[in-house]
Amino acid sequence: MLGSHIDTVIDAGIYDGCYGVLSALEVIQTLKEDGFAPSRPIVVAAFTNEEGVRYAPDMMGSLVYAGGLPTETALATVGADGTMLGGELGRIGYAGPHEPGFLSPHAYIELHIEQGPVLERESITIGAVENVQGISWQKVTVEGDANHAGTTPISMRRDAGYAAARIITFLRERAKNSNSPTVATVGCISFEPNAINVIPSRATLTVDLRDPDEERLRQAEAALAEFLDAISQEEHVEVSVERLARFEPVRFDQRIVAKIEKAAKDRGLTSRRMTSGAGHDAQMIARIAPAAMIFVPSVAGISHNPKERTNDEHLIAGANVLLDVVGELARR
Amino acid sequence: MLGSHIDTVIDAGIYDGCYGVLSALEVIQTLKEDGFAPSRPIVVAAFTNEEGVRYAPDMMGSLVYAGGLPTETALATVGADGTMLGGELGRIGYAGPHEPGFLSPHAYIELHIEQGPVLERESITIGAVENVQGISWQKVTVEGDANHAGTTPISMRRDAGYAAARIITFLRERAKNSNSPTVATVGCISFEPNAINVIPSRATLTVDLRDPDEERLRQAEAALAEFLDAISQEEHVEVSVERLARFEPVRFDQRIVAKIEKAAKDRGLTSRRMTSGAGHDAQMIARIAPAAMIFVPSVAGISHNPKERTNDEHLIAGANVLLDVVGELARR
Repeated sequence: MLGSHIDTVIDAGIYDGCYGVLSALEVIQTLKEDGFAPSRPIVVAAFTNEEGVRYAPDMMGSLVYAGGLPTETALATVGADGTMLGGELGRIGYAGPHEPGFLSPHAYIELHIEQGPVLERESITIGAVENVQGISWQKVTVEGDANHAGTTPISMRRDAGYAAARIITFLRERAKNSNSPTVATVGCISFEPNAINVIPSRATLTVDLRDPDEERLRQAEAALAEFLDAISQEEHVEVSVERLARFEPVRFDQRIVAKIEKAAKDRGLTSRRMTSGAGHDAQMIARIAPAAMIFVPSVAGISHNPKERTNDEHLIAGANVLLDVVGELARR
Repeated sequence: MLGSHIDTVIDAGIYDGCYGVLSALEVIQTLKEDGFAPSRPIVVAAFTNEEGVRYAPDMMGSLVYAGGLPTETALATVGADGTMLGGELGRIGYAGPHEPGFLSPHAYIELHIEQGPVLERESITIGAVENVQGISWQKVTVEGDANHAGTTPISMRRDAGYAAARIITFLRERAKNSNSPTVATVGCISFEPNAINVIPSRATLTVDLRDPDEERLRQAEAALAEFLDAISQEEHVEVSVERLARFEPVRFDQRIVAKIEKAAKDRGLTSRRMTSGAGHDAQMIARIAPAAMIFVPSVAGISHNPKERTNDEHLIAGANVLLDVVGELARR
């Protein structure tokens, strides 16, 4: 503990991502104001395309930085809107001059809202994140036969939409009954020809599977593959799968996790070790440097939603823990 | 039987709709060539917007003609692409000068491909259509909560996409197990925000229910409504329903149906009485005039699909039955 203190964090009303960067800027400013002399440079990083909604995979910038994806491949990624990442980065003036990996960090620490309900439910202020769930993203395409909705008997249908619905219910029911923390989500769907009186000839859906344990994540993937085989035979449809992203679970640096716990304790804040349900840039940088994360509570666990919120008290607490841990890491 | 004969029908490669109109033109031409003198005028009709894909409801032109929908309401219909029917009709030069209903037919007969598998399966050439299924079109909207796909435990989700999938599987399983000819189809779907790592906050889907029996169609609608209530409570989602179209089953004029059977028999063609699974303009005109339909086989029962096809032999057979029945109806 440095004796420094942050008593306000700019609240931009956007928590996911922005909170960490704004707090990091507060940390730098506070350390400067207090005349702190670091023994190594402190850098604030914000990586391109953490969400991956427009260009897959997510956490793309940090993945490229850590050497997990060639820069050229990333820049050539075609987005959901048909644009290319490289062109769009240039267009908005975000195509910087440095080579990814040009700085090799001594340590990396990321402050983030939890985006889940655990801390709030347990009335704990600080999460010392010790690992991150593995993520498996797949695009599933089902091909059946377009046919007339009024004249085609149920028994003669090859209904791609019905098969897609069965995949969605299978994933939910497996996740619910598996007695494991595996989560499964179908966030995107489309039917073709998408006409009210035509049986869908094609259904496309995305599958997001996550688990903190690699073995269980593989089991979930295998169970899905087996179900796709079964539904394909049962409904006489063709099913194909494209892998969009796959990241193994990550274990963070235990020394940094311990520093987070100690900083929280020294500030009189409650804390617990926890798993990150969401993917974060820290898990990519963990490939090239000791890394860990600090979480603060999300109100009602709501995230990826305009109602996403974290109370000021928790925003400030997280920033102060970041301040102390950065001070520690930059001093030694 | 007039002794006249059609030996070719222009095959435009588009069967649904066009076949009937092209055959009717052949009928007129053949009757003229043979010097047939009708005792009443013969008119070939093609109605606007039979499919209803762009502007709901379907069979709109004939519905307006029969007085079932005010002309102004129809013209003011806003389509799936945001355009208005009246404006588009004017733009393409199809806004004619006559008032709907300006001709009051003595009888109405419509020739059409079956768009289903019955005639082919039974190796029968002519369907004497004696009734038409009732149609119920609804749009169902499910509202849940957008939330993070990685951090939100399954038990805390209000997943509109999962509820939509349950509605689709419910409809299929009820249709499959109900021991009735009810068919149910979900042809359109969309999720919001439609992002791979976000639980859907909204799902919109269309439901197409059909049955030749009004009571059973009502039962199907009631079963859906009951299921929507149940899923709403079970998954803590809000469900709302908008009616897009509703047509009761129609029974055609039995004297015309008998004339179709007789014409087929006189030409040495196999025939059977049958129900139309699809909706047709004839069911609207049946409100204001005696009406019936002639069906010919669809190859593999495929329709609403680029592979839709009817063999030349069947196209010609249907046109000749139309010729004979029109001759009969115009003579007496």
